[in-house]
Amino acid sequence: MRLIENLQFNENGLIPAIAQDADTGEVLMLGYMNEEALRRTLSSGEVWFYSRSRQELWHKGETSGIHIKAYSVWKDCDGDTILVKGKATGPVCHTGNKTCFYQQLTPLEVDESHQEET
Amino acid sequence: MRLIENLQFNENGLIPAIAQDADTGEVLMLGYMNEEALRRTLSSGEVWFYSRSRQELWHKGETSGIHIKAYSVWKDCDGDTILVKGKATGPVCHTGNKTCFYQQLTPLEVDESHQEET
Repeated sequence: MRLIENLQFNENGLIPAIAQDADTGEVLMLGYMNEEALRRTLSSGEVWFYSRSRQELWHKGETSGIHIKAYSVWKDCDGDTILVKGKATGPVCHTGNKTCFYQQLTPLEVDESHQEET
Repeated sequence: MRLIENLQFNENGLIPAIAQDADTGEVLMLGYMNEEALRRTLSSGEVWFYSRSRQELWHKGETSGIHIKAYSVWKDCDGDTILVKGKATGPVCHTGNKTCFYQQLTPLEVDESHQEET
């Protein structure tokens, strides 16, 4: 159980996991893994998450067919975040976008009281 | 309050925020922002987090002197994760590493029962 000893899962037994395109560096999505999802990711070479809404293991692409190949898996300095560098077999986002991060926030979205700082 | 309406902060009022080097694509760290940290990041152009351990707003670099300039701020498709593309003024990690993700996990770290799959 070395895996668990070196990682900090949160109070729900989950750890955030960033998926990144290994070639372009593009951040594709952030999901959550439980211990079993991480284990399957490491052993299968494809990304597994734990679906917080469905409360079940989620093999990314099991319905969409778009998987993420996991080339390498990293933990951060304090062991409470995972980074997977890999390659998706298609657009990762359920909206059809290549990445889930396709909407930019602007300073205009802050309160009026802060507008003068923009 | 458009900012809040479009974002999903968790039960502690926090949202995970990935910091990425805008040039190299390297993922530097993951921190957590509350609404005010996000507001300050957007208005100041430097990354602010909320420290879960100290339970206070945390201007990244306020002690180390190593800030992260925020070039652009993004939300994901369901509004529960932030991505900041920017540039750090030095090594981001408190260990002195350029990124907090410098330790790779291997399939060897999974249980023996899964070893045959490696």
